[in-house]
Amino acid sequence: MFESAELGHVIDKKAYEAEVPALREALLDAQYELAQQAQFPVILLIGGVDESCKGDVVNLLNEWMDPRYIQVAAMDLPSDEEQARPPMWRYWRALPPKGKIGVFFGSWYTTPILLKVKGEMKSSQLTQRLDEIVRFERMLSNEGALILKFWFHLSKDVQKKRLKALEKNAHTRWRVTQADWERFRLYDKFRKVSEHVLRETSTAHAPWTVIEGTDYRYRNLNTAKILLEAIRQRLANPQPLVAGAFAPLRPAVDNINVIRSLDMEQSLSKKAYERQLAEYQGRLSLLIRSAKFSRKSLVVVFEGSDAAGKGGAIRRFCRALDARQYSIIPIAAPTEEERAQPYLWRFWRYLPRRGKVTVYDRSWYGRVLVERVEGLCSEADWMRAYSEINDFEEQLVDSGMVLAKFWLTISQEEQLRRFEAREKIGFKRFKITDEDWRNRSRWTDYEQAVCDMVDRTSTEIAPWTLVEANDKHFARIKVLRTLCESLEEAMGK
Amino acid sequence: MFESAELGHVIDKKAYEAEVPALREALLDAQYELAQQAQFPVILLIGGVDESCKGDVVNLLNEWMDPRYIQVAAMDLPSDEEQARPPMWRYWRALPPKGKIGVFFGSWYTTPILLKVKGEMKSSQLTQRLDEIVRFERMLSNEGALILKFWFHLSKDVQKKRLKALEKNAHTRWRVTQADWERFRLYDKFRKVSEHVLRETSTAHAPWTVIEGTDYRYRNLNTAKILLEAIRQRLANPQPLVAGAFAPLRPAVDNINVIRSLDMEQSLSKKAYERQLAEYQGRLSLLIRSAKFSRKSLVVVFEGSDAAGKGGAIRRFCRALDARQYSIIPIAAPTEEERAQPYLWRFWRYLPRRGKVTVYDRSWYGRVLVERVEGLCSEADWMRAYSEINDFEEQLVDSGMVLAKFWLTISQEEQLRRFEAREKIGFKRFKITDEDWRNRSRWTDYEQAVCDMVDRTSTEIAPWTLVEANDKHFARIKVLRTLCESLEEAMGK
Repeated sequence: MFESAELGHVIDKKAYEAEVPALREALLDAQYELAQQAQFPVILLIGGVDESCKGDVVNLLNEWMDPRYIQVAAMDLPSDEEQARPPMWRYWRALPPKGKIGVFFGSWYTTPILLKVKGEMKSSQLTQRLDEIVRFERMLSNEGALILKFWFHLSKDVQKKRLKALEKNAHTRWRVTQADWERFRLYDKFRKVSEHVLRETSTAHAPWTVIEGTDYRYRNLNTAKILLEAIRQRLANPQPLVAGAFAPLRPAVDNINVIRSLDMEQSLSKKAYERQLAEYQGRLSLLIRSAKFSRKSLVVVFEGSDAAGKGGAIRRFCRALDARQYSIIPIAAPTEEERAQPYLWRFWRYLPRRGKVTVYDRSWYGRVLVERVEGLCSEADWMRAYSEINDFEEQLVDSGMVLAKFWLTISQEEQLRRFEAREKIGFKRFKITDEDWRNRSRWTDYEQAVCDMVDRTSTEIAPWTLVEANDKHFARIKVLRTLCESLEEAMGK
Repeated sequence: MFESAELGHVIDKKAYEAEVPALREALLDAQYELAQQAQFPVILLIGGVDESCKGDVVNLLNEWMDPRYIQVAAMDLPSDEEQARPPMWRYWRALPPKGKIGVFFGSWYTTPILLKVKGEMKSSQLTQRLDEIVRFERMLSNEGALILKFWFHLSKDVQKKRLKALEKNAHTRWRVTQADWERFRLYDKFRKVSEHVLRETSTAHAPWTVIEGTDYRYRNLNTAKILLEAIRQRLANPQPLVAGAFAPLRPAVDNINVIRSLDMEQSLSKKAYERQLAEYQGRLSLLIRSAKFSRKSLVVVFEGSDAAGKGGAIRRFCRALDARQYSIIPIAAPTEEERAQPYLWRFWRYLPRRGKVTVYDRSWYGRVLVERVEGLCSEADWMRAYSEINDFEEQLVDSGMVLAKFWLTISQEEQLRRFEAREKIGFKRFKITDEDWRNRSRWTDYEQAVCDMVDRTSTEIAPWTLVEANDKHFARIKVLRTLCESLEEAMGK
């Protein structure tokens, strides 16, 4: 894989200087059109061997193009806010918006490569990690991102010469530290691991380009031309959707489904409700205030038919918590900054840090519910959302989050009763809108979407809890009990 | 100040239950109109004595109103990202957008009060801190925020009884810790300091309301009614601008000003330029990579006439840096999320953490330059901006940031030459727009705005450097030299 990058490519000064002006002009034109269209972001990963002057490449991009439309994400050590969340959180928060070029200097490849080189990661773990990365990049690509991954390579000899030359020069001596030489001693190992990683993750939608870093003119021209070509191509041909033959989703032939199978008659007397409410709120309160929880976090997703009682259930839950521990994120229309990002971005941004709770009042499932039913996104988009959501939730759980997902369901008759009642009570009037009546008319479509969602996203690590909510008492207690049990299980009680 | 809050106010159950439904309805109506108009945010500070159930009040607000339009900012210990920036950064990032209610549970008052109670802050320091707070809140208010500050009070006796009762009950015993009793022993001190702080910071635009926390019904009704009344009033009467008689700004009678006094003939030969460029870039590079800088940070502001060479100067500076250390923030039109916040919010959000550099390509000075000249904001807005900016910059410098501000100036003739040249060179063409030609026609107005800006915001802690930029070599070297000197001075070299 690195053979072509050890051939000693050299561009002479004259040829270089003859090419650069037109190249810069073309890059600026392309970049300007990218910014004007603001239809997709460009994600540029910069990796490679030490001393291959990766930093110079980044500076070059800023110099040859308009730095106003480039954002460099320098991936230092994670901050405590980053460490308190799933590992990918820091990359999500650094993603460029549509119309911009985001340069990742260090990326999601850095840690796995280094751990493997140092022998701190097993091959099977690496394989799994790379698999996750490929899925992540495919998702970004499906969301429209143009992904380019550059690997700057130096042969072992050249790298050694570079280090020695730097050491010899009084002005640059400070740049070479003991750590640099230690890393150099791992050159062969590093090369082997990198080669493996690049091979496994060079995909059609996010290919690696290996560039020899020995001659800066060759390196610069090559990088700039590939970048230019890629942006131009995409500007000219908005990404063709990876077609994919979807097995159509259709109702079970016997018309039995998970929603219709629920026993909607279940209820709880006021007395039993009040006793159990106090009990479960007490238990939750203790669980979430316990020392063990400070190393966990809790994400609760509430979805449900309109008027199913999500708000009431959320309030009963939150009353068990200290106001400092939780936030409720109501999911409404995305903001301008959110629309400029991949679909899941606006959910990532509100993930709780350790010791905290985030309640999503509606959630990322909007894509496979309302957006599917109302045709707000293409079939390809909501079809791929199931596995993207599973990947997302797996990351949450892997990082120590407890994830609970509730679907609150009511019968059509009960919903009608509640709609009518709401229209009469002043302070509940704002809760019922024309949209609610419209949604109601698509009851069967929504029911089918819910069943498909449960089939495809109720996993062993993040199961759905279906809540029979015709009786509010019963529903609220089921929610609280489930939360207690999930927390107790996760915290080993 | 607390006398009225120790009278044992009590509302009986019947009266309470009779009032609540209408109150909730009215609150929801007000909140809904607030959200619909989205013209101003409501900032609610919750402070007070321990055990006065401040958390219950926050839960109550979430229960009686629509939690979708309330965001609770729980001010725990600052994260390392917060600690690496000026102290107010964490409050800025938690400000509610227009149309929402932001509840600060713990606020900018917490630290000064606690430090003073523990004897770790001198009275003179406290006075200065409170003065800064008053100016901060005045700014928020001028930006349209409705600010309400609630202080929940309990007499010493009542607080003691509460702690004992909690301890006696097996279910609540865990809530009372040694630390609670230690804080209780400081009750008198705490009361005295709080009283002083409340008195000094209860202003017309951000008054404190002290509420007795003994009886929850009294507390709830009182809080809710004040909140309701305040929102309603503001909805009905959009805030009258604090008139203020502005001493008009006018040019000096002799027509001499700081810009016209510059010696625009200064220049530097190519040879001298290249030598000095290498020298200063080397010095900067060492300074910013030094261990001392890891405890500092650098903010560089570039302003200047169109085509004055800001971009070129920025690039020459950035070439001295590691791409991982800096980001360039181009200031263009604010986004939707930025427009929903106070003017300075979008600059706060990009402040560098320790060890990092942020370069603002145009900046918060837009308000007193383009917005003033083009009439994009009211005179009152740009007039107050000078002191708000000085307050802002003082905070940056106080927290260990090095702040350098450059105004690059060129003559009218030189600008014309550059505009014409740009229109000829392809890859610079995008740099010149109709707007640039339009701005040019208002040369004298801009010149006056620049002079006023320098007069009012060139302070001993954050001086402006005026850069004669007819000769690009000269300008770039002056910028680099100034940066070197500022850093050396700040780092005690």
